[in-house]
Amino acid sequence: VTNSLTREREIDYIDLPAGITIRQATLSDRGALIIQWAPEWPESCFQPGWLRAHDYSNTPLPDDGLRVARHWTAGDIAEPPTTDGRDVLTNDDVLESWLQDLAQYGLARLSNVTPEDGMVAEVVRRIGPIRPTNFGFTYDVKITSNPDSNAYTSMALDSHTDLATREYQPGLQFLHCLENSTTGGAGTMVDGFRVVQDIKTENPDVFETLASLEWTFTNRAVDTDYRWLTPLIIHDRDGQLSELRLTGFLRGPLALPFDKTEAAYNAYRYLMEKVRQPEYRLIFDYRPGDLVAYDNRRILHGREAFSSDKGERWLQGCYSERDELRSRLRVLARNHRA
Amino acid sequence: VTNSLTREREIDYIDLPAGITIRQATLSDRGALIIQWAPEWPESCFQPGWLRAHDYSNTPLPDDGLRVARHWTAGDIAEPPTTDGRDVLTNDDVLESWLQDLAQYGLARLSNVTPEDGMVAEVVRRIGPIRPTNFGFTYDVKITSNPDSNAYTSMALDSHTDLATREYQPGLQFLHCLENSTTGGAGTMVDGFRVVQDIKTENPDVFETLASLEWTFTNRAVDTDYRWLTPLIIHDRDGQLSELRLTGFLRGPLALPFDKTEAAYNAYRYLMEKVRQPEYRLIFDYRPGDLVAYDNRRILHGREAFSSDKGERWLQGCYSERDELRSRLRVLARNHRA
Repeated sequence: VTNSLTREREIDYIDLPAGITIRQATLSDRGALIIQWAPEWPESCFQPGWLRAHDYSNTPLPDDGLRVARHWTAGDIAEPPTTDGRDVLTNDDVLESWLQDLAQYGLARLSNVTPEDGMVAEVVRRIGPIRPTNFGFTYDVKITSNPDSNAYTSMALDSHTDLATREYQPGLQFLHCLENSTTGGAGTMVDGFRVVQDIKTENPDVFETLASLEWTFTNRAVDTDYRWLTPLIIHDRDGQLSELRLTGFLRGPLALPFDKTEAAYNAYRYLMEKVRQPEYRLIFDYRPGDLVAYDNRRILHGREAFSSDKGERWLQGCYSERDELRSRLRVLARNHRA
Repeated sequence: VTNSLTREREIDYIDLPAGITIRQATLSDRGALIIQWAPEWPESCFQPGWLRAHDYSNTPLPDDGLRVARHWTAGDIAEPPTTDGRDVLTNDDVLESWLQDLAQYGLARLSNVTPEDGMVAEVVRRIGPIRPTNFGFTYDVKITSNPDSNAYTSMALDSHTDLATREYQPGLQFLHCLENSTTGGAGTMVDGFRVVQDIKTENPDVFETLASLEWTFTNRAVDTDYRWLTPLIIHDRDGQLSELRLTGFLRGPLALPFDKTEAAYNAYRYLMEKVRQPEYRLIFDYRPGDLVAYDNRRILHGREAFSSDKGERWLQGCYSERDELRSRLRVLARNHRA
């Protein structure tokens, strides 16, 4: 029994009498299944479409609106999959094209998004809520005089995920280019799932080490002190790759038994040498108006060093969650059917 | 090598020569260990305090500032552990007392927090960033004319976690009572970890079923469509309880093979009957100024029905993450030592 306004259940299964059984089952004129219960309980009516969708003999429910993930190397895609984003705030087709690419490749770019302060938040709100962090609701990736992150310097950043120091790394990250007149500073993206799948084939022992031994990630500032212990590769309950955690510049001291340390460091070196191979590393320039989105638990992002001698470089970023992407794609698909 | 401003690493392990070895190790006058490397590499200096803290023969790093969790029944604690919160915005001792209880019991209350709109957000910002959701940055638990959640009616709410429909349920939830002049509507809290530990002892088969079979949680509204498949009990990699997921009114149709459905429903009934036992259920009144915090992955919260005939009832709530609690406790402990 569902509340007609909230669409949430009002009666839980355990409020039904224990051991309730079917007294009589009949079909209505319109094909619905009518169940009468023993002991006495209000009769139930199941529509045929609902029954077909939830038939126990079916495979699990298809997750409509979501395509299957495609793992890639730099050779497979020359550029981040790109949608013209000038109408993204008003046009659902633009939004859907971008988000379908994001779900599938873990990486998708909008071009021509007005390069204004705050625009990245407006675009992400088209998907769902933003996830604020200690770095702010949004954050500005530019050179600052007293940086609390390597991101806010001009140095190169090796391929990494963001916030491996947290229990839950943000699922989605967005970077909007507002200015870029410096030399260097190209963006880099690596499909981490593709890399570790290749490692699994080539060297199962290294893969197993990466998926089992725990590393320490830490990040301290004046007002914060984040720490987390985690393997670098995480699977879900079905054994599917769920997450990579890899932020070299936030590694804390290793806290493993001594007899595991050599295997741990060797596996880490193997992984990072692989991640750095040009075969996997997509390199692209940020143009003002580009807004790049990626799955922060799958895609490793980085940048080349840039010269801070002349010109300005300003990216504005924020985080959200995979849940919001999936919810938005389902709603867009539902609207197609309506 | 750590950047002196960002406190983040500048050189990754894999930038060191492969197979680097110790050429010479000496002690400085002040007891630091000086290492010279082969092949040639800038010498390293390790302070004795650092070496002791990271000695591989030690047990894992103690997580300072955090006490061990204590699992409770309603008989163990008559009321939510309470700190007078009138100075919480300015007094770190008040903050720390409250947060230590929250870390330990998964539940802690402040009293006398000015019952004003927006105050809950101000208090939670003393810990760290708020996690917004589709229900808003903060949300108002009061009767609305067109509710999108059962919470916004006067009906009783069975013990539950919030947002089991998401990949990551919020780790922390906060409810601040601004008005309460209705009859009924007492708050309820159950230590879900205590309940399932007792189930594990009494009936390991039920426990195993709850920890393995996946349920569907769904929540649809005009602009959102969240779904998640998950067991009701989740462990971390060390086999410790990590999370319960239990929102009866957001259960979707079961999507299990037919031969598992009876075991699934029986285990669910066993769990919910246990959760409803008075032995586990702490019942307390919300007084204006009370601000209750709890671990939303461990504690099941609910309320009794209330009469909407006369009086007003207004709770204002928001979410945050366990990471922020741990970070804040570490910083408060660090400040003690300074």
